[in-house]
Amino acid sequence: MVSIRVGNPSHDFVSALRILPSDEHQLVAVAARDLKSAQEFARIHGIPKAYGTYDELVGDPDVEVVYVGVINPHHLATVKLVLSHGKHVLVEKPLTLNEKGSQELMAIARRHNLFLMEALWSRFLPSYDFVMNAIKTGAIGQVYHVDVTFGKAVADEAKLARKALGGGTFMDIGIYTLNVVLMAFGDEQPLEVKAVGHLNQYGVDESVSAVFKYSDGRTANIATSARVNLSCEAHIVGTKGTIKIPFPFWCADKVYLNDVLHEFAFPPAAEVCNFVNSSGLRHEAVEVRRCLTSGRTESEVMPHEASRGLARLMDEIRRQVGVKYDVDD
Amino acid sequence: MVSIRVGNPSHDFVSALRILPSDEHQLVAVAARDLKSAQEFARIHGIPKAYGTYDELVGDPDVEVVYVGVINPHHLATVKLVLSHGKHVLVEKPLTLNEKGSQELMAIARRHNLFLMEALWSRFLPSYDFVMNAIKTGAIGQVYHVDVTFGKAVADEAKLARKALGGGTFMDIGIYTLNVVLMAFGDEQPLEVKAVGHLNQYGVDESVSAVFKYSDGRTANIATSARVNLSCEAHIVGTKGTIKIPFPFWCADKVYLNDVLHEFAFPPAAEVCNFVNSSGLRHEAVEVRRCLTSGRTESEVMPHEASRGLARLMDEIRRQVGVKYDVDD
Repeated sequence: MVSIRVGNPSHDFVSALRILPSDEHQLVAVAARDLKSAQEFARIHGIPKAYGTYDELVGDPDVEVVYVGVINPHHLATVKLVLSHGKHVLVEKPLTLNEKGSQELMAIARRHNLFLMEALWSRFLPSYDFVMNAIKTGAIGQVYHVDVTFGKAVADEAKLARKALGGGTFMDIGIYTLNVVLMAFGDEQPLEVKAVGHLNQYGVDESVSAVFKYSDGRTANIATSARVNLSCEAHIVGTKGTIKIPFPFWCADKVYLNDVLHEFAFPPAAEVCNFVNSSGLRHEAVEVRRCLTSGRTESEVMPHEASRGLARLMDEIRRQVGVKYDVDD
Repeated sequence: MVSIRVGNPSHDFVSALRILPSDEHQLVAVAARDLKSAQEFARIHGIPKAYGTYDELVGDPDVEVVYVGVINPHHLATVKLVLSHGKHVLVEKPLTLNEKGSQELMAIARRHNLFLMEALWSRFLPSYDFVMNAIKTGAIGQVYHVDVTFGKAVADEAKLARKALGGGTFMDIGIYTLNVVLMAFGDEQPLEVKAVGHLNQYGVDESVSAVFKYSDGRTANIATSARVNLSCEAHIVGTKGTIKIPFPFWCADKVYLNDVLHEFAFPPAAEVCNFVNSSGLRHEAVEVRRCLTSGRTESEVMPHEASRGLARLMDEIRRQVGVKYDVDD
């Protein structure tokens, strides 16, 4: 498996990958638009080959799977390039900027019988596996309400703030709140979505608050903010109890099931990481291998349909708060 | 001060009142539609006079202030009756079923120079006084987001469930979540309200989730449910920190200001109460006395404008989720 783009998420992902058995996951090559960056990245992580173009990387016959960590607006074209060269692909979230782009990639992957998965790492964590199992076994009865907030005072970070970089707080961190809602309700689409939000000077959202109406009395609330630090907790509430995923819910090492604490320790990553609990990124790499060795082109944990559902709801939320990307036309 | 209707809230209110100095607050009379109930209530609480009609009570020259605890649809007519006899009045929340009715009462009270206040008891608690002071002194910087949930698995309680009784979960408990939002934003009206909800077989709401957009980047989320027990916490989030009002937020004895715990103990009431922390109801009685002895017909803590703002937002939320009372026409 290899990495494209040498930014912070890629660094963390590769650091997490390096703690896995080397006979199962090999870092073959890294590519970046700037060869020097790729070489420096390769040096830090002990990767044999470094390329200054993505074409070189996807042409490398030793490369089997590509991890795409380029900026959001480049996901679509980069993944297309990877798939067109017959390589499997793991794409940093969001899969693309909208449902249309995501569906296009899914169609290509299916046509070429290639593996495609959105790297929404929460889904693959042992803590989330525990949560899903608790819901399925009825430990909290019927789920009626889900409440999740994710807010960090990071409004000035370019990646979030700039529309040209596919920015928007919801796209970057709000997606994790939506993911919990979708997981808790079995990736079902809500009957109704209502959202409000505030845009920054570049026309992308700095905050979004949204409510969801599901069938049979079910509801969900989410809030995201780049202005203030919200609780960053998730509450999944059922007729017989509650699952609380405390801060940092998106990469949880703790889960309260009916007030009983369950812990899920993260091992250290190979290098110092940029984000909290990044060694947990290894679970998505393990999932890619598990799927490929069993001949699957789609993960059951993060199926195409889940990515499509996420993208569809993100499109609707952006529409309601007034965030539009060029590719939406 | 006297009590009308001998239901649970009135019992708790009078039990709380009885721990106040008897030279400041005297229980003169109680009235109920059923004389026997009034007599039994009078016996329990040591009240000298019991009436089987409200007309007798409001005609009693010893009565100065009336506490109205009748069912929601009867607030409007009962308060009108009280005001027409020149008595001051404290009305159990909600003031009336909608903004129109509430404004009507305010106009009558002002015309007669009589005191009128909605007994939304949270507002008068020492814990809420502490919260408001923390916000005003900038202890959490500029408030950007408010998040409150109130859910109890009480869907079958008639008072909540029946439209004829002015039911609806939001009217009964959701009002407390809205109150926190309004208090945190200085009783300002939001620019936008979006709500979803589910109705029961009688056409009133069993759950409501709503989001609010305020000017200058501010947002709020609330959730209420009669189906499941929600966290029942309030989070007021600012640029410099967070105020967390833990369960039971609506009658809080604890407040976390930037993670530091502040406690506000409740004394025992005179009798065993129906609801949690009911001795705190004494603070609204103290506020009535404070206003009357200083010649005020309106409280600064719960001014008419705050009641009007609450009613207006409740009307809009009901409109969006499809709850309509007969008096809305």
